Amino acid sequence: MAYAAAQATIGDSEFDRDTAVVPRPGEPGVYDADLSAGWTIIQAVNGGYLLGVIGRALQQALPHPDPFTVTAHYLTASQPGPATIRTETVRAGRTLSTGQASLFQTDAEGREVERMRVMAAYGDLDALPDDVRTTAAVPPIPPYEECFGADAAPAGGGAIAGSTAIIQRLDLRLDPATAGWAVGAPSGKGDMRGWLGLADGRDHDPLSLLLTVDALPPTAFDLGIKGWVPTVELTVHIRCRPAPGPLRVAITTRNLAGGFLEEDAQVWDSEDRLVAQSRQLARALLS
Amino acid sequence: MAYAAAQATIGDSEFDRDTAVVPRPGEPGVYDADLSAGWTIIQAVNGGYLLGVIGRALQQALPHPDPFTVTAHYLTASQPGPATIRTETVRAGRTLSTGQASLFQTDAEGREVERMRVMAAYGDLDALPDDVRTTAAVPPIPPYEECFGADAAPAGGGAIAGSTAIIQRLDLRLDPATAGWAVGAPSGKGDMRGWLGLADGRDHDPLSLLLTVDALPPTAFDLGIKGWVPTVELTVHIRCRPAPGPLRVAITTRNLAGGFLEEDAQVWDSEDRLVAQSRQLARALLS
Repeated sequence: MAYAAAQATIGDSEFDRDTAVVPRPGEPGVYDADLSAGWTIIQAVNGGYLLGVIGRALQQALPHPDPFTVTAHYLTASQPGPATIRTETVRAGRTLSTGQASLFQTDAEGREVERMRVMAAYGDLDALPDDVRTTAAVPPIPPYEECFGADAAPAGGGAIAGSTAIIQRLDLRLDPATAGWAVGAPSGKGDMRGWLGLADGRDHDPLSLLLTVDALPPTAFDLGIKGWVPTVELTVHIRCRPAPGPLRVAITTRNLAGGFLEEDAQVWDSEDRLVAQSRQLARALLS
Repeated sequence: MAYAAAQATIGDSEFDRDTAVVPRPGEPGVYDADLSAGWTIIQAVNGGYLLGVIGRALQQALPHPDPFTVTAHYLTASQPGPATIRTETVRAGRTLSTGQASLFQTDAEGREVERMRVMAAYGDLDALPDDVRTTAAVPPIPPYEECFGADAAPAGGGAIAGSTAIIQRLDLRLDPATAGWAVGAPSGKGDMRGWLGLADGRDHDPLSLLLTVDALPPTAFDLGIKGWVPTVELTVHIRCRPAPGPLRVAITTRNLAGGFLEEDAQVWDSEDRLVAQSRQLARALLS
């Protein structure tokens, strides 16, 4: 199995370096970051990667370490390059703390433009009791070896890789049942499923879970829609610290109406635990 | 059919009066409200009603009329009585505008305390194209006449009504399959379904849809959990203007883990359209 070949660790990996934030001296709650061109789709910085950056700033600003629920509104398109994150501690409770953060970049005219705004509650996943009562079932994804990577068969692989730099950072293997769009045969169901690791072998943690819910191709591709599908709002719940190994991610769209659609993601770890749930509202800009 | 007996209209109803906000002269974006004791559960002001109040303030503050996606973080428990809502227009775009709002109340020591904070995107539902591609199916709820209201059989009805004032404002009829908890026999599945109108006969609109996603008894009751289930964060997407008549609401919890659970709600109108979707993260405080 290709996964596990590389050896990056949590704290020393591409994801950690590219989501690093530096507290600005003398300005409490303000962090500087450098958005990497390595996590782009065509020219757009991936929304899940942005969540990782802003999530790390909130992790430093708030008294609790782990994102429990994070909501992002994407306001303008982020560009690779310098960014400033301004955080606010809204409430610091015993079990949970609530924070807000905005990510800004400077435009060509030198004006500070807000790219995204986030509200979040942070807690301590390791402090939670172990009890689980779930009726959620692991999504039906074939074994890792039977799924399609960007290095797979020419037609499918090429289309999946496209011109997106982020593919080089991910170990993404799509369920063949949801990869038909890559060869011009979408299923029409609005599903996208696959295995998702990080290319350098770093295991997942709560911060990289923020990335995983918005890192697969859009479900719209499986509906046969080829245009851009920008996220309006995305909310992710982190329910459990993920065990080592690649994750399984399943995303579904049930309702495309009036030019908007929801994408519901569930993320499962190698011990068959539901570690994250997310829903986003996106626009379908038909091409 | 009991529904349709009363004749309140959108704009002239209990919900409209109780969610009214008054712009504060000389302070743009600031609104005064009076939280009604009529929408409480025991002593707590219902979170869905609060969304209606703050949603109305954002409707007045933003250039677009309809909530498309609204996220609320509940910070401290709201009390019936005066409240101040401070709004901010984050971004005003052509199709969507983004806003933020906080609801404050004054505590016994005269300090202003933030009760909840909301981020939202507003648009114009009537400006959307009519296209719908959906695989979502109407939830299996028996006819209105076969569901249980607060005036139903003594045991069930009494337990449903409890000491909650909000029951008087709602025309809530629970699916018998999810009402077993009221007679000490919860199904254990984590489901809650029913018909939901407003008691005075007012039809639903996008603002009252904000109420509907948090107005049924908690799914935790159907899991046999009797304690308080406070909402940490709730996000609702309004997908369509609802047709006249009572709505069908179906809420499910799949994953109770570490003392937290999600509640996923879907709301369907009388023309079988999916008009709202929501998910909240709540804490299960076991009693």
